[in-house]
Parts: sequence; C-alpha cells; structure tokens
Amino acid sequence: MAGYEEEEVKLFGAWGSPFSSRVEIALKMKGVKYQLIEEDTGNKSPLLLKYNPVHKKIPVLLHNGKPIAESIVIIEYIDDTWKSGTPILPQHPHQRAMARFWAKYIDDKLVPMWKSIRSTGEEQEQATKETEEALRTLENELQGKKFFGGETIGLADIIANFLGLWFGILEEVCEIKVLTQDKYPRIHQWINEYVESSVMKTSLPKRSELLSLFQTYFKPTK
Amino acid sequence: MAGYEEEEVKLFGAWGSPFSSRVEIALKMKGVKYQLIEEDTGNKSPLLLKYNPVHKKIPVLLHNGKPIAESIVIIEYIDDTWKSGTPILPQHPHQRAMARFWAKYIDDKLVPMWKSIRSTGEEQEQATKETEEALRTLENELQGKKFFGGETIGLADIIANFLGLWFGILEEVCEIKVLTQDKYPRIHQWINEYVESSVMKTSLPKRSELLSLFQTYFKPTK
Repeated sequence: MAGYEEEEVKLFGAWGSPFSSRVEIALKMKGVKYQLIEEDTGNKSPLLLKYNPVHKKIPVLLHNGKPIAESIVIIEYIDDTWKSGTPILPQHPHQRAMARFWAKYIDDKLVPMWKSIRSTGEEQEQATKETEEALRTLENELQGKKFFGGETIGLADIIANFLGLWFGILEEVCEIKVLTQDKYPRIHQWINEYVESSVMKTSLPKRSELLSLFQTYFKPTK
Repeated sequence: MAGYEEEEVKLFGAWGSPFSSRVEIALKMKGVKYQLIEEDTGNKSPLLLKYNPVHKKIPVLLHNGKPIAESIVIIEYIDDTWKSGTPILPQHPHQRAMARFWAKYIDDKLVPMWKSIRSTGEEQEQATKETEEALRTLENELQGKKFFGGETIGLADIIANFLGLWFGILEEVCEIKVLTQDKYPRIHQWINEYVESSVMKTSLPKRSELLSLFQTYFKPTK
C-alpha cells in the first residue's frame, strides 16, 4: 500500500491461532505489509515476553518499535492508524458500539466455552448448554444480516473467525457436534459467506492444514 | 451542557454498582445531562430486559431511544458522541490502545477475582493469589504516573473505579485485607488522587452510604 513502505510492522503470532489470525485479517483489510514472526507457544521467545509482559501471549503487533497486545485492542489500533483500505469499524457512534458489543460477546463466550466443551461429565454438559445458548444468540443476531457488521465484514466478524473456521475443525477432530445446520442455518450461511469472501480467501489459514495441526495436537486420547 | 438539552439520555443503572457508576462518571466528564433509572437487580424491569436482552444486566444507556449495553462499550460511545467536556480516550492511536489494554485488563481481572475471594478453601487461596498478582501488575504500571491515563483520568481509571472505592469497602465488610499500603503504595496514592479529584467528588457514591449498602447485603454469615 502506497506510503506505508517505510513503516516497520511485525506480528508476533502463530499461523494456526485464531487470535493471531484476527490481526492478520485486519492488516490485510488495510493493505498493510507486515512480517509474521512465528512464535512457538510452548517455548515463547524473549522478545514476546518483553513486548507482552502482562499476558505473555500472542498476538503482539510491533509498529515502529511500539508493542500492542490483545487482539481486539490491536484491531482497533489498526483501524485508528491506517485510514486506507477497508474500514473495520463503522463511522457512526451507535454502529461502532454495536460492533464492539458483539466483538466482546463473541470473544468472551465462544473461545472459553470451547475449552470447557472438551472437558468431561457435568462440566462438559454445562459448557455445551452455554455454547448452545451463545450460538442461539448469534443465530438470532444474524437475522436479516449477511455479516455481523451488516453488508460487509467488520470487527465482530473478524473476532468470530473462530466460529468461521476453527469451530468446525475442532468439532471434527474431537468428534463433537454442536453447530448443526438445522439448528443454526444463519450461522452456517454466515460461515459460507465468510470463508468465501475475498479478504478471508487470502487471510485465513488453509482448512486442510489447520485440520492436520489440530489432529496432531488436540486429538483426545481414548 | 449547551446544545445537548434536546437529547434524551437515560441510564438504567443502580447507584451502588461500580459498573453503573463508570457510565455516570463518563457522562459527568462530558457534562451530559441524564436521567438515572434505578433498577432493582433482584427484580429487573421489563424495559431493562427489552434494552439488554443478551445480558439482561445494568448498565444500559438509552440515547434518543437507542440502547447500548456493556460499560466499556458505553463509555467509548459517550466519548465518540459528545466531543465537549473532558476527553476520555487520548487522540493518539498508540495511547488509545494502551488505555483500552488496561481497561480490559482491569475489567477482566479485578471484579471476577473479588467474587472468588469471598469463596472458601482452595478456591479462595487461588483467587487471593491471582488478585495479588493483578494488583502487583497495576502497581507496576503506575510507576511514574499519577493516573493509569497519565496526568489525567482516562478510560482505564474509570474502569478501575471498583479499585478506587468499592475494593476497600468490601475488604472492610468481609474482613479480608489484600490491598495493603506497604505492598501497594502507588495504588494507595492513586486511590487518594482518584477519590479527591473534582470529577470523582461529584460522580462516585458516598463511601458511608456504600458501606451501609454492602454491610446489609454482603456481610458473610458466621
């Protein structure tokens, strides 16, 4: 993208992480060139620990030497900083608030719930129930809308990338089925529109490669 | 505030809630006139359930008929909407990101931890340990700074109102002491600056009234 060549933009991330992927999507929507520094989450680099001493986690964006952590915070930073490319948050304050509300909802609910679904017994039962409730809420929100952002992909859609790609892969690997077509037709329609959109085609990891990754690391022992 | 008289600004809240108080602080910083609709959190009104069907919780801001929920989302909305009064987020993208990072950290850590501290046994021990870790992180962040926002009160300070007023009251009522002066001198200094600042003097509930409220409702049975 013209004008940005002089800038140093590095992303400490991991190609298979939905959190890291969120930031890559945002950078690509803005046409910002960046260097992905692949972190081994089992053996974090001294630079990652230096740049995110509070959480010690990916993703961390380093822009001209200044670090920013937490994926939603990073994406708002990207939208505040690079005005070219596709806007990520809408301009109108109420629409911005709605985007932030749904981004927070999805971030707070979906990923933590997935972790609990992989547990056993009562904990798993409770987590499945809560996940279904969250999915029903999202199904309802998508009524009459192509994306959570309306006609175009916005902040909440980017945060929902876990639902767009990772969720189905994890269901497959863990042999759990929660997100059924009959119960959640609008979410399935959203997933189709999402993964087929031009920005996601060039931003999301390949499904087959992610599937291999999770088959290797997350397959439950039987 | 001139120009805003025609607007309808209602806050569905509760005077003793730190979450509701956050929104009142932001509205007062902007000089926005509002009507506080006191909700009984044990018997929520049909209007609250209508305006926040997802979380069914206070606070909800209703601005010219449009509802917004979640305190951080509401405060960003207030800062996006009313440009007069005191800015809540800084203008520079990196400083905005830092404000959002710390607001999220405080929101994610402090209030949920408090709930766990009031538990018993191993759960209490773990929660106390995690709370102390969060307090150490905040103590460290306040090095060389008057407020989390720097020289002036900003988003993260508003979100930290729980620490500024409620934390000490709950320690007193529950006969727990975590936030000691010797371990956290900068947080104590911050609390003093915070509650004595002109905006907080007119925005925070009275300590004596909050203390009575929590003595009535939250005193542990012995």
